[in-house]
Amino acid sequence: MLETIGKQAKQASYQLMKLSAAQKEEALLAIADALEKNIPAILDENKKDVDALAAKGGTQALIDRLTLTEKRILDMADGARQVNALQDPIGEVLGMVKRPNGLVIGKKRVPLGVIGIIYEARPNVTVDAAVLCLKTSNACILRGGSEAIHSNKVIVDTMVSALSSVGFPQYSVQLLEDTSRETVTKLMKLNEYLDVLIPRGGKGLIKSVVQNATVPVIETGTGNCHVYMERSAEIPMGVEIITNAKTSRPAVCNAAETLLVDEAIAEEALPAAYEAMKEFHVEWRGCEKTRAILPQAKLATEEDFATEYNDYILAVKVVSGIDEAIAHINRYGTGHSEAIVTSDYFAANRFLDEIDAAAVYVNASTRFTDGFEFGFGAEIGISTQKLHARGPMGLKELTTTKYVIYGNGQVRR
Amino acid sequence: MLETIGKQAKQASYQLMKLSAAQKEEALLAIADALEKNIPAILDENKKDVDALAAKGGTQALIDRLTLTEKRILDMADGARQVNALQDPIGEVLGMVKRPNGLVIGKKRVPLGVIGIIYEARPNVTVDAAVLCLKTSNACILRGGSEAIHSNKVIVDTMVSALSSVGFPQYSVQLLEDTSRETVTKLMKLNEYLDVLIPRGGKGLIKSVVQNATVPVIETGTGNCHVYMERSAEIPMGVEIITNAKTSRPAVCNAAETLLVDEAIAEEALPAAYEAMKEFHVEWRGCEKTRAILPQAKLATEEDFATEYNDYILAVKVVSGIDEAIAHINRYGTGHSEAIVTSDYFAANRFLDEIDAAAVYVNASTRFTDGFEFGFGAEIGISTQKLHARGPMGLKELTTTKYVIYGNGQVRR
Repeated sequence: MLETIGKQAKQASYQLMKLSAAQKEEALLAIADALEKNIPAILDENKKDVDALAAKGGTQALIDRLTLTEKRILDMADGARQVNALQDPIGEVLGMVKRPNGLVIGKKRVPLGVIGIIYEARPNVTVDAAVLCLKTSNACILRGGSEAIHSNKVIVDTMVSALSSVGFPQYSVQLLEDTSRETVTKLMKLNEYLDVLIPRGGKGLIKSVVQNATVPVIETGTGNCHVYMERSAEIPMGVEIITNAKTSRPAVCNAAETLLVDEAIAEEALPAAYEAMKEFHVEWRGCEKTRAILPQAKLATEEDFATEYNDYILAVKVVSGIDEAIAHINRYGTGHSEAIVTSDYFAANRFLDEIDAAAVYVNASTRFTDGFEFGFGAEIGISTQKLHARGPMGLKELTTTKYVIYGNGQVRR
Repeated sequence: MLETIGKQAKQASYQLMKLSAAQKEEALLAIADALEKNIPAILDENKKDVDALAAKGGTQALIDRLTLTEKRILDMADGARQVNALQDPIGEVLGMVKRPNGLVIGKKRVPLGVIGIIYEARPNVTVDAAVLCLKTSNACILRGGSEAIHSNKVIVDTMVSALSSVGFPQYSVQLLEDTSRETVTKLMKLNEYLDVLIPRGGKGLIKSVVQNATVPVIETGTGNCHVYMERSAEIPMGVEIITNAKTSRPAVCNAAETLLVDEAIAEEALPAAYEAMKEFHVEWRGCEKTRAILPQAKLATEEDFATEYNDYILAVKVVSGIDEAIAHINRYGTGHSEAIVTSDYFAANRFLDEIDAAAVYVNASTRFTDGFEFGFGAEIGISTQKLHARGPMGLKELTTTKYVIYGNGQVRR
């Protein structure tokens, strides 16, 4: 069964390779139109999922993520149109050289082939992932959370009908309807047909994929992000940055979890930051030195510095200087986004050079790590691994390259 | 123990990040000199390994791979000097943009961090791998075959002394002296410290790493490569290319294993190719149509078309045209190197576009897929996966990128 799905996807990927940008445009617009036309049916099917989850006692947060509304479906269609408007990355030649023996060697951007995407019970990801794959001429196998199965089925059916109406291979987008754990584990080992696997979701899902997959994985990430106020920092700027990084959207991966403050400015900076965050009821958990200045802070444990709270909680540490700050971040960080606030040229450069993370900021909030903010026009996720893609992933990160070599009879001596 | 090695490597990697190209030059030249000075000691230790393998009844081929000579050690030193002469890829900025909010976002080439390399009983790989990692400011953990343990120890000791003499962190290069299967399996799951794992060696080794690793792997590859003589091919050119691709070095991954010939030219092309390969005693295994033209060929089975012989054996199939040729290659190929011989513009373009492989050739031998032939000046291996690196890997493939972002107080609204 899974074998068949894999084989069909691989065959479709060969067909997709041949399609022009104009044909892909037709397909993405057809998907957007079909989703809009099919709103009543999608809402009906979604209601089955929502009712079932509610009957099972699902939390309000889970139910919210699962629930579709007319507005949400229109947003999904709109998302497809936005991706359609982006430049097609396929076919670009990244470089071409003529070798001494006359061989002309070019490096060309091509689709990855078949992409597996494993995600949770968020039906909007079904459209989003399919559209990004199609735009980059990849076939995809989607495995969404079991709680969203009715929603996902009707959405994929809608997209597949739209694709068929414009002559696209029908297996370009496939949903894994069997959402059992056994089958998803098999999917993670489907090396013969899958070129890459992208997990999108929480820590548990990502960890499970990293632990079990034999197919290459792009790990999208957890973010234990820091803001470091160096001794030369403009304190009001630092306060604004940490307040934004902590409170503007605490549940996302680019939110800050820990504030590091240079001891030379701690007495001034800490109360100012505390004051600025008061309206958000942020819970402070600080080191001993922090508590000497701000007794309102709870005592932070080792565990606190290693935790991605995703909540209105902030770990705080007073550090002796940039060496300690860099060492702390490289030890506890997850390689996502890290920021320094400083007026010192050398401190800025050291931080940029020595911090081992996907995105390193000087005098800006970590919250900017995002495909849209970086100007990619789309985002598949934020990679915290170092292979293939690091940081926000746009369309280019769904491609690979191929060497194309033009000869006139060369053989190797 | 492995935990300690991992932690030391990670610490060393942070130090390596800060070193300049000039400091790395000093280190690589020191390694080259030290290897030359230490030839007698290296030969002594190598003799222990060779004697032990001979006593165990190792094959002549294995003994040859394991045996060092003065010349081979001089070649290793020379290899270090050649890598040293290449341009340092670290620090290059691949692009920088100013966003509407004033953030300046650059993408910078940085080291991967800690690279694990698992290889067989070939002591020259010990130097080669270490030098490529050092040139790209990566720390490495080397795990060579157990039969080469004395050779590897003395070589790593020699390199580490040389590194210390120029002030390099001592854990930049570490050898895993415990070569047990249990420990190598742990190495494959050392996600906290290892950024990437590269297996270098035969099929069994690579498969084992792909199956067991949770650390991201760069799969270097097996090659079931094809030459397709399309109907418009210049037959003498085609004969020269397939002869070169099959016989110039049959044991390597870029050698051809299967010849596909268009039925329109099979009667002329097959006897000519057979004749040209006669002096190499190539065994032909052909389809029925091949055997109708060349009764000397044995009958090929399905299995033959899927096999990487690495030997003087050639599978041969007569195909009805380019559609069948492309389908055959995409089915049986391993995504390594594929060649068409043709005079037809459209056939050339279709082959380049539709073949799913790392290197696709028109009118040239598959044997050119190689870091040196491609002008990279070095080669870590040839990747047959699609993530991160595809085809020959040079120094750049041992790097990742980091976004560096320059702000002046930006926060996200």
